[in-house]
Amino acid sequence: MAIWLNQTSGDFEARFAAFLTTKREVSDDVNDAVRTIIDDVRARGDQALADYSKRFDGIDFTQVSMRVTDAEIDAAVAATSPELIEALNLAAERIERHHARQMPKDDIYEDAIGVGLGSRWTAIDAVGLYVPGGTASYPSSVLMNALPAKVAGVPRVVMVVPATGGAINPTVLAAARIAGVTEIYRLGGAQAVAALAYGTETIAPVAKIVGPGNAYVAAAKRHVFGTVGIDMIAGPSEVLVIADKDNDPDWLAADLLAQAEHDTGAQSIVITDDEALGKAVEAAVERQLKTLPRAETASASWRDYGAIILVDRLEDSIPLANRIAAEHLELAVDDPEPLLAGIRNAGAIFVGRHTPEVIGDYVGGSNHVLPTARSARFSSGLSVLDYVKRTSILRLGPDQLRQLGPAAIALAKSEGLEAHARSVAIRLNLGD
Amino acid sequence: MAIWLNQTSGDFEARFAAFLTTKREVSDDVNDAVRTIIDDVRARGDQALADYSKRFDGIDFTQVSMRVTDAEIDAAVAATSPELIEALNLAAERIERHHARQMPKDDIYEDAIGVGLGSRWTAIDAVGLYVPGGTASYPSSVLMNALPAKVAGVPRVVMVVPATGGAINPTVLAAARIAGVTEIYRLGGAQAVAALAYGTETIAPVAKIVGPGNAYVAAAKRHVFGTVGIDMIAGPSEVLVIADKDNDPDWLAADLLAQAEHDTGAQSIVITDDEALGKAVEAAVERQLKTLPRAETASASWRDYGAIILVDRLEDSIPLANRIAAEHLELAVDDPEPLLAGIRNAGAIFVGRHTPEVIGDYVGGSNHVLPTARSARFSSGLSVLDYVKRTSILRLGPDQLRQLGPAAIALAKSEGLEAHARSVAIRLNLGD
Repeated sequence: MAIWLNQTSGDFEARFAAFLTTKREVSDDVNDAVRTIIDDVRARGDQALADYSKRFDGIDFTQVSMRVTDAEIDAAVAATSPELIEALNLAAERIERHHARQMPKDDIYEDAIGVGLGSRWTAIDAVGLYVPGGTASYPSSVLMNALPAKVAGVPRVVMVVPATGGAINPTVLAAARIAGVTEIYRLGGAQAVAALAYGTETIAPVAKIVGPGNAYVAAAKRHVFGTVGIDMIAGPSEVLVIADKDNDPDWLAADLLAQAEHDTGAQSIVITDDEALGKAVEAAVERQLKTLPRAETASASWRDYGAIILVDRLEDSIPLANRIAAEHLELAVDDPEPLLAGIRNAGAIFVGRHTPEVIGDYVGGSNHVLPTARSARFSSGLSVLDYVKRTSILRLGPDQLRQLGPAAIALAKSEGLEAHARSVAIRLNLGD
Repeated sequence: MAIWLNQTSGDFEARFAAFLTTKREVSDDVNDAVRTIIDDVRARGDQALADYSKRFDGIDFTQVSMRVTDAEIDAAVAATSPELIEALNLAAERIERHHARQMPKDDIYEDAIGVGLGSRWTAIDAVGLYVPGGTASYPSSVLMNALPAKVAGVPRVVMVVPATGGAINPTVLAAARIAGVTEIYRLGGAQAVAALAYGTETIAPVAKIVGPGNAYVAAAKRHVFGTVGIDMIAGPSEVLVIADKDNDPDWLAADLLAQAEHDTGAQSIVITDDEALGKAVEAAVERQLKTLPRAETASASWRDYGAIILVDRLEDSIPLANRIAAEHLELAVDDPEPLLAGIRNAGAIFVGRHTPEVIGDYVGGSNHVLPTARSARFSSGLSVLDYVKRTSILRLGPDQLRQLGPAAIALAKSEGLEAHARSVAIRLNLGD
């Protein structure tokens, strides 16, 4: 039921271009509501949080504390099966080890004329992590968002998670403990984002907010951007599979459905040089959908946004993949190297038939927060770099100032910035 | 005329906290106008650009070409004084050499169990650089924005600059030539941003837009964000000078005015442990203002936002500086090391009395595009990293999948994502 695009058709370029610009997200305009909530939290602090949490989440903070206690986290860990704790620990260890390699190094040096130059990296002081409630409350996302902050050395990692009726998924709390989250509050929606950005009596403000959320959370993050930093605003997930003829169609269908089950706006695409394989995959998708618990979501995604693109030769997939700039790209081919070398735009690449994208969602070690909606053309997945910032350092003595000063004065004067010129000239006794 | 804050006063914390949150920018709400312009450029392409350029810049594209020709750039270079060309070349060489050190390295490795992991960096395919017109058309900004793109290996760097009546500052064109800009268009405002983001018949779209601009340009950048990447939205500039008693007040006053002359919203702050020095600096500012061409702007900035903060001991400036998180921080002290070690939040630090901030504006080698308005708490100045993106690479064989698969299946099932679990299980012949 997915669409087919055939490279050898005369209208391929027009259809492919239209396919690229298809919007997969309905963005509700919730800006006015969000602005009201944020202003209210800024004005009334904890009391506003209590009112909204009562109204939206059915929690009464006179009965349950806003902050999740250590004892509650202990109980959540105890309530999680040993097998699951073991899986979380394996994932956390692998994520932590991989991300440790991303930590940028300071670079402090003196150049040929004795000017001291430097790039110094420091961790952000405090980071807020939004975790959605209900069925979108994923322990793996807690690991992926919080562990890079831990690796970066962020001293304060504050998690907010809505708790309908007071309950929080215990596995989420267990993941937070494993990932080194330092504070957890039972809060969701725009009010949680406002509390993180501006602070209240109970919650000290953070400097950056990360994590996925619904339209209200996304609008609130856009709204507070500037006062605090934010991560990307993620759209629906997508996978592109480049497949040669020698694939088991059932393996590929399973991968397409793993993406499609996330969201009706998710997108699963196959590029292949073998029409028969494409047809077999399509049939396998239909077959597997029959027994899938989230079949309704997955079949809507596959029907509305799924695509099979037929190319003449496999290497023709390279320019198409670079234009699609997929969040996830699987290379299900015998010889992935030429494709791997040609791909410039992709959030993450999964190489070979034994690397299903799902491994990257959980235990590969790389981050599963990746650029969606073609933004891999200009942005990267979440990493340690998102939790540090760089300060430039410059140091001149009188000799260096004498050497560089005249050029600075010439440029300043050409820009009409006389006070700039004077700030150098006065130190060189040049007068004006 | 600047305000004084005294650390030993009882109301210091309240006054300092209020000082930190003072807004220095009036943001006009230009969103509706900008949306109309963007929609129009998307719908009508070049014709819309011609109409807006006629209306706003007084240029007729039937008389002057939209694209600046090589011959025009040659003429601009010839019209620029040799002294200025030399200064631009010195600046460019130093900027390029420093930024080359920022290029991130790929990291491709195999872990202990044989999983292939990788971080691969690639340049963005095409970048747009907005350059303001009129007196804010700074050649130094062209170097600072374009050279990191050149170092990153961006193949296409497209500059747009409004040309009132057709004229462009020749030094800006000379700087663009030196910095390796590949295309230049006589365009400004929201229409230029729309053309870069969506493309027209003449201009192919880019993947990211950088550079400063007025309220319309800033609103347009926010609007197209997502379709393309954008750099930070810069606010008014600021400098913080930490000064001991042994300073020449005239040097410090010159530095404060270099900042203040930019914009009435600019901010210049001194922290000192010596009240007499503070008073002497204040007097020197008044004296120097008398002969400054941009005295009107600078005195408004100093009057409205200037501040002298008196601390008991110099090391007390560290926590204050970290809260201010200044774009530019000068350490005008005998022994800068203890301060340097304690500062976590600053865009750039200028160490010692012979490193006026202005050197960093032009010829130091570091970038002058830096985080304003306290955003150094969570973000960094412009660098090569802004022109590259990272792709994660993951590669498993059957052995590795057998080792990691069960944990992925356990986590997927706990998240209710059955298709995720199946995508791994089917490869391990585990069935369901």
